[in-house]
Amino acid sequence: MWDRLLTGCHLATMDPAVGRPFGAIEDAAVAIQDGRIVRVGRRVEMAGMRARSIESLGGAWVTPGLVDCHTHLVFGGNRAGEWEQRLGGADYEEIARAGGGIMFTVRATRGSSSGELIASARERLRALMGSGVTTVEIKSGYGLDTATELRMLNAVKALAGSEPVRIVPTLLALHALPPEYTDRRAEYVQMVIDEMLPAAVGSVHAVDAFCETIAFTRGEVETLFKAATVLGLPVKLHADQLSNSGGAALAARYGALSADHLEHADEEGVAGMAEAGTVAVLLPGAYHALSETQRPPVDLLRSHGVPIAIGSDCNPGTSPVLSAPMMLNMACTLFRLTPEEALAGMTREGARALGLQDEIGTITPGKSADLCVWRVSGPAELAYWIGLPGPEKRIVAGLDC
Amino acid sequence: MWDRLLTGCHLATMDPAVGRPFGAIEDAAVAIQDGRIVRVGRRVEMAGMRARSIESLGGAWVTPGLVDCHTHLVFGGNRAGEWEQRLGGADYEEIARAGGGIMFTVRATRGSSSGELIASARERLRALMGSGVTTVEIKSGYGLDTATELRMLNAVKALAGSEPVRIVPTLLALHALPPEYTDRRAEYVQMVIDEMLPAAVGSVHAVDAFCETIAFTRGEVETLFKAATVLGLPVKLHADQLSNSGGAALAARYGALSADHLEHADEEGVAGMAEAGTVAVLLPGAYHALSETQRPPVDLLRSHGVPIAIGSDCNPGTSPVLSAPMMLNMACTLFRLTPEEALAGMTREGARALGLQDEIGTITPGKSADLCVWRVSGPAELAYWIGLPGPEKRIVAGLDC
Repeated sequence: MWDRLLTGCHLATMDPAVGRPFGAIEDAAVAIQDGRIVRVGRRVEMAGMRARSIESLGGAWVTPGLVDCHTHLVFGGNRAGEWEQRLGGADYEEIARAGGGIMFTVRATRGSSSGELIASARERLRALMGSGVTTVEIKSGYGLDTATELRMLNAVKALAGSEPVRIVPTLLALHALPPEYTDRRAEYVQMVIDEMLPAAVGSVHAVDAFCETIAFTRGEVETLFKAATVLGLPVKLHADQLSNSGGAALAARYGALSADHLEHADEEGVAGMAEAGTVAVLLPGAYHALSETQRPPVDLLRSHGVPIAIGSDCNPGTSPVLSAPMMLNMACTLFRLTPEEALAGMTREGARALGLQDEIGTITPGKSADLCVWRVSGPAELAYWIGLPGPEKRIVAGLDC
Repeated sequence: MWDRLLTGCHLATMDPAVGRPFGAIEDAAVAIQDGRIVRVGRRVEMAGMRARSIESLGGAWVTPGLVDCHTHLVFGGNRAGEWEQRLGGADYEEIARAGGGIMFTVRATRGSSSGELIASARERLRALMGSGVTTVEIKSGYGLDTATELRMLNAVKALAGSEPVRIVPTLLALHALPPEYTDRRAEYVQMVIDEMLPAAVGSVHAVDAFCETIAFTRGEVETLFKAATVLGLPVKLHADQLSNSGGAALAARYGALSADHLEHADEEGVAGMAEAGTVAVLLPGAYHALSETQRPPVDLLRSHGVPIAIGSDCNPGTSPVLSAPMMLNMACTLFRLTPEEALAGMTREGARALGLQDEIGTITPGKSADLCVWRVSGPAELAYWIGLPGPEKRIVAGLDC
């Protein structure tokens, strides 16, 4: 006797073992026990099986719960005002002089209490959850001092403890150089390694950095990655977003979980990622918001067999995204992924980018019963519509929420 | 004693008479009587006024209900499958040979019962309503025979009678040439004028056409516009979307309510629109979905003083849009409108594009109390977020819904 049996539905299992597009099983059923998927198959094969709760879903499509593997969801303030100024004709330099840009968010975050950080992040988190997200990665990185970084991570922990969603915290240790360290770059990196990193161990799942001309050099990132590796923390990297700075290759050399953005990555970097098993996390929201024109090298990623994940990059400056299905649409329309690749990017490969591929990301016996129920005629519709409302039902670890 | 008083809020009245960006009145109140706005002002000025219901909105921003002035919301089937094929590498010609394109939708619409058309359109309508829409224009145009066009218009009427939203029906008489009239273009136009147009009078608010190399010529459109004018029906036009076919100038010559799309419109057309008072309806969803690169001439529209409205263009082939705030974002990000212009485009100017500027579109005494309540820190946020969930509350003619 199982806990739950969902039937009268079609499954986009996203499990390659099924051997069909989307891992689709039509006229299917899925059984849940103790929060886990225990059996998946065609309804006729599961006839006569018993469960405490049997629900017929009236022909809906069921997908794995969506995984958003790259967000900066916790921050103070927002940058709508700055964005409005830019659209009104102000240039970046004027805005920076007027106190805008990432340092606006750093000041606002440093000036926010835990309660304020949690309350504003909760609204954004609920919007993403409402759009179908059941697992979300959240980075620190707007504190740039140990106390504020830890306050951000505590906010993440508070959200994880109070919202029905799986949250994966990341220490984004090298995001931007704080103003108090101008002309003392090496000292900042050393402080991160000596103080911030040890303080965050135990609270975070991985360590991230931003390798870019406007952020940190390859050498600085390597110093951080070596220290993280000593502490047993996996790494990931914001790589080759605005220029080819060799970030993809660097991430691969340290066996990173993922290299993210990648608009300017080259074949050497992509080949390295393939060898290292590093996932490519593409972020179409930032590409859209920044009106970028250089697409990430999707064909190279495909030909080298690099897994492709999709994230919202939810952040106040360059990707104020609150909807996962909108990212599926943009991944297809802007990056020319197929709807199947896009959905895999926010399920199976999003899970892999977080190192959680054995726990979530496909509808497969043994994995957590994290599911979404959609009233659509096929899974391609999840990417086709522009502004699709969220799923009819979201299930996390077997429970409706 | 008024019916309702909304207080403790900020208003983006969008009324130019207020003389501030967004027509903003902070710390404001709005009084409602018999479904209409009767008084608008700062809270202190309205202190002591009495109402049967007084609600404090806790610092929320109130905007006019959103107006979506261009949709093709009623149709059979959808084209997610065709879209998926295109992303998988199939070209347009292959898809057309396989029965795709607009004729797929025409066949599916002709093959749908009234009940099927109403049920599928209702889902899309509710998504748009949930995103903040209180007035929506809906075009016919997938029947291309009189019986099916009337069935579409009856579906629109049924939706108008059963959903809390204002619906404005349009006869899109010349949308595409139906296959049974191949090589008999003039006969089709004559049938529309002799049969379809008289049958639709009384059920529609305006007559629309698609002037484009792949659709109808200027001469064909003129023949229709003359007939519509004789019947006293206002006209509007899909103009200059894919090429400069003189559509904007043609629309202006017939005093059209609006000319829509306009990516390729020239200065002559824009000047004509300014003189005629024809509204420019920009449709960023189609621009996004078709990966267009030629932006509409926003600077020309501004310098000639042509009012700019924004629509979703909700349709299955080229703009499967279900969210009004997403169009605000795309109007800014893709067309470089300011957030204020974008919001005016889905309120005040959207109303003007429908000839309803005296009834809706601003928070002004005398107009219908169609309002949205948003939990944001300023009205620019409605365009800033990518995938913003709908408003906290939607009020149509003074009633929550």
